[in-house]
Amino acid sequence: MALILTSVVSGFSKIEVSYAAGKAPKYVFYFIGDGLGASQRQIAEYFKQEVTGEKDAKLLMNTFPVAGINTTYSADSLVTDSAAAGTALATGHKTNNGFISQTPDGDNLRTLIEEAEEKGMATGIITTTRLTHATPAVFASHNENRNNENEIAADYLDSGVDFIAGGGYRHFVPKDWKWGKSKRKDDRNILQEFYEKGYRVFVGEHDTKAFRNYNPKVREKVIATFTYSHMPYEIDRKNRNDVPSLVEMTEKGIEVLSKYKNGFFLMVEGGRIDHACHANDPVGAIHDTLEFDEAIKEAYEFYKKHPNETLIVVVGDHETGGMGLGFGKNYFLKLDELTDAKLSTADVLNYENPYEKGDNRAEYFAYIEKNLGLDNLTEAERKEIEKAMDIVDNGIEDKAGEYGGYNPVAIAVTHILSERANIQWTTYAHSGVSIPMSAIGVGAEEFSGYKDNTEIAKAMAKLMGFELTK
Amino acid sequence: MALILTSVVSGFSKIEVSYAAGKAPKYVFYFIGDGLGASQRQIAEYFKQEVTGEKDAKLLMNTFPVAGINTTYSADSLVTDSAAAGTALATGHKTNNGFISQTPDGDNLRTLIEEAEEKGMATGIITTTRLTHATPAVFASHNENRNNENEIAADYLDSGVDFIAGGGYRHFVPKDWKWGKSKRKDDRNILQEFYEKGYRVFVGEHDTKAFRNYNPKVREKVIATFTYSHMPYEIDRKNRNDVPSLVEMTEKGIEVLSKYKNGFFLMVEGGRIDHACHANDPVGAIHDTLEFDEAIKEAYEFYKKHPNETLIVVVGDHETGGMGLGFGKNYFLKLDELTDAKLSTADVLNYENPYEKGDNRAEYFAYIEKNLGLDNLTEAERKEIEKAMDIVDNGIEDKAGEYGGYNPVAIAVTHILSERANIQWTTYAHSGVSIPMSAIGVGAEEFSGYKDNTEIAKAMAKLMGFELTK
Repeated sequence: MALILTSVVSGFSKIEVSYAAGKAPKYVFYFIGDGLGASQRQIAEYFKQEVTGEKDAKLLMNTFPVAGINTTYSADSLVTDSAAAGTALATGHKTNNGFISQTPDGDNLRTLIEEAEEKGMATGIITTTRLTHATPAVFASHNENRNNENEIAADYLDSGVDFIAGGGYRHFVPKDWKWGKSKRKDDRNILQEFYEKGYRVFVGEHDTKAFRNYNPKVREKVIATFTYSHMPYEIDRKNRNDVPSLVEMTEKGIEVLSKYKNGFFLMVEGGRIDHACHANDPVGAIHDTLEFDEAIKEAYEFYKKHPNETLIVVVGDHETGGMGLGFGKNYFLKLDELTDAKLSTADVLNYENPYEKGDNRAEYFAYIEKNLGLDNLTEAERKEIEKAMDIVDNGIEDKAGEYGGYNPVAIAVTHILSERANIQWTTYAHSGVSIPMSAIGVGAEEFSGYKDNTEIAKAMAKLMGFELTK
Repeated sequence: MALILTSVVSGFSKIEVSYAAGKAPKYVFYFIGDGLGASQRQIAEYFKQEVTGEKDAKLLMNTFPVAGINTTYSADSLVTDSAAAGTALATGHKTNNGFISQTPDGDNLRTLIEEAEEKGMATGIITTTRLTHATPAVFASHNENRNNENEIAADYLDSGVDFIAGGGYRHFVPKDWKWGKSKRKDDRNILQEFYEKGYRVFVGEHDTKAFRNYNPKVREKVIATFTYSHMPYEIDRKNRNDVPSLVEMTEKGIEVLSKYKNGFFLMVEGGRIDHACHANDPVGAIHDTLEFDEAIKEAYEFYKKHPNETLIVVVGDHETGGMGLGFGKNYFLKLDELTDAKLSTADVLNYENPYEKGDNRAEYFAYIEKNLGLDNLTEAERKEIEKAMDIVDNGIEDKAGEYGGYNPVAIAVTHILSERANIQWTTYAHSGVSIPMSAIGVGAEEFSGYKDNTEIAKAMAKLMGFELTK
């Protein structure tokens, strides 16, 4: 895919309302780990200790001075989806699962990003999912249905957000787009419209180099969307390095937004921890959590330069997978079982290189041996995988939902990998457990305690002098 | 069992070191929920909402102003047992699984209770498990092996603890005890020795009434141990009401310790949340967590009378069961499935009234229908239970550990109950996830943040001027 639209644009007539005095931070980072529960944070930390050999190695987010617990339930369920959870985090209001910054009655709810813009702050949205996926969407759009991603893409255009980076150009390009596939039903080229509004536009894997080399000199606006759908899991991405990492996007976002005089509000989502956990993939989840923590480090370096003006808040939106750091009757974890894995089971074994009807079984076993370290399968483990292969070969429908709609072989493999590490999962969906929160910087103390997710947005609004919907 | 030893004793020559000035609290409550992870706290809260119909009902502990997260790993495993976790909470030191307030080399570690006594404070230990079980033991004893419960019972005698209440008299009475069974191999009657030291002694179910009517007028010392082994789960206990609840023991403990002039340090364990979760029993776990919260309420009422002198810290020691508040592919919990249960599956179905070889199956199905609300079993559910019945009837060994060493029928039933509520478990042991902490009162802010479990004890020692082992 070619670099189709780029142009340095500067000097936006941002309304520069004078910055509120007092203790409100000038620079706000809102990190959201999708599916980031206590298990995901803890196993990533333990994995880091395993890999580095440093017994006291910590995730940066786990060292922040303020910690709290958040409840995540939505207006219509104790188990939220990302739309309702994101809406709570972005607007301070509960809504039903599926709603994007709207009440269950369809009324728009003011978001923190909208309020930040009102105050003259620059704003940014960064994610590893499609930009139109629920969590980023709640900061840029209002919709009664998270699946209306073409509408959500159009909303981005009017959002006024200054730095936008993530995956999923398929909802931004016209239906007969000459450079690739689209999910749009119309001829709108939203990226072209962004360009015409003065945005610098990066689209597709081929713009990765240009994005990396891009050196904003003045106040600019950027939209970058590198992949057709979601961006790859970090463990897969770093092998091919054809798109920027979450760290790179965060670094660039800070660089761009720092050129604005009036401070900024930047939301960064580690969006695919959730997807890995849906597919019960411990390796994908761990590496995406570690990458999320590295992105937080970018903000932390900025904080160290501006300690009296910066706030970093790190939350999850819900836990995914019911990830249990214990299996069977044993009192240990064996994380060394996960260190040989070179690919995600969630994406690669399910979609990119799945076991398909009639595939050569010996080759498949060799493949998972080489790429996942599954080199000494027990008889029971081999049988579990062969049972799943039989299901695929015979085209048997998974009526009981045993494999959660995923490729049965991929699930058999990921469960074996999980159980070897002595972990296991209870669901292919989300769970209703409360989750950890961390914060550092100006006003961080506002985020401590056992809070509801709506209280995070409210605390932020109070601190910033934002007026959310009553 | 008869009330064998009671006597009002008063006027102990407690060394009344003058109470440290400054912000140290005079009254310290240390509540430890064994197996109390985020899932256990959250499901109990949601269950309370379900039962009361109050959508905003909270656990008291979840309303405390300070919350934090604790890591729980031990010196030799990422998945701790209760001995190592308790040692961390009582001494500020990591040790290996199995050790009771000793280092892995066998050196004794000073405990918070010992330090409180040094400062002239009255002390108390309350639990629903055997008093000699790991968590209470770490506050009264030092041992290289948690299983040396007879030695641990003897250590209680020398511990100087003023108020001791819980289960497990079997380690305190001599081997040929005339009033009941014992686990001792010797002729020591530790309770008699307590009596001779001036303690008021309550032993066995028959002393429940005397304990309830007991009205301490002066400074007294008390040991009360009501059951042969652990005390019953709250859901079972309240049906028969033959032993005091955790709330009653806490109330009495406060009453006794309040008579001392120099303040007190009281550890209260909700000890069987853990056991319920080991047996994957959601109902047992929920009701014991709710009872634990009610016991905290006793302390909270005391705090309200002495707000400037009281500290309440609520922790868990680890999560048990890998309890996932989500199952299958659904985004909801159905806690109404658990409201009809009138007994624990953990104790009653496993030990008190288990399905045994050749039992009448129809009667058993009628029994679980009546007592657990399992009145409309699906074909698949019935088959799961019948499969387990076949295993019991045929005396088949559970080599794969599918049932975790429990009665297979009990496990089949409890898993069906769990899955109906849309929850499930990953292990019959503990998990390595980090867990929530809450605090209120003088110095509560010392307990916030993402901490290791050892830091809780250290924060407490710092606050109190205690000197723990370096």
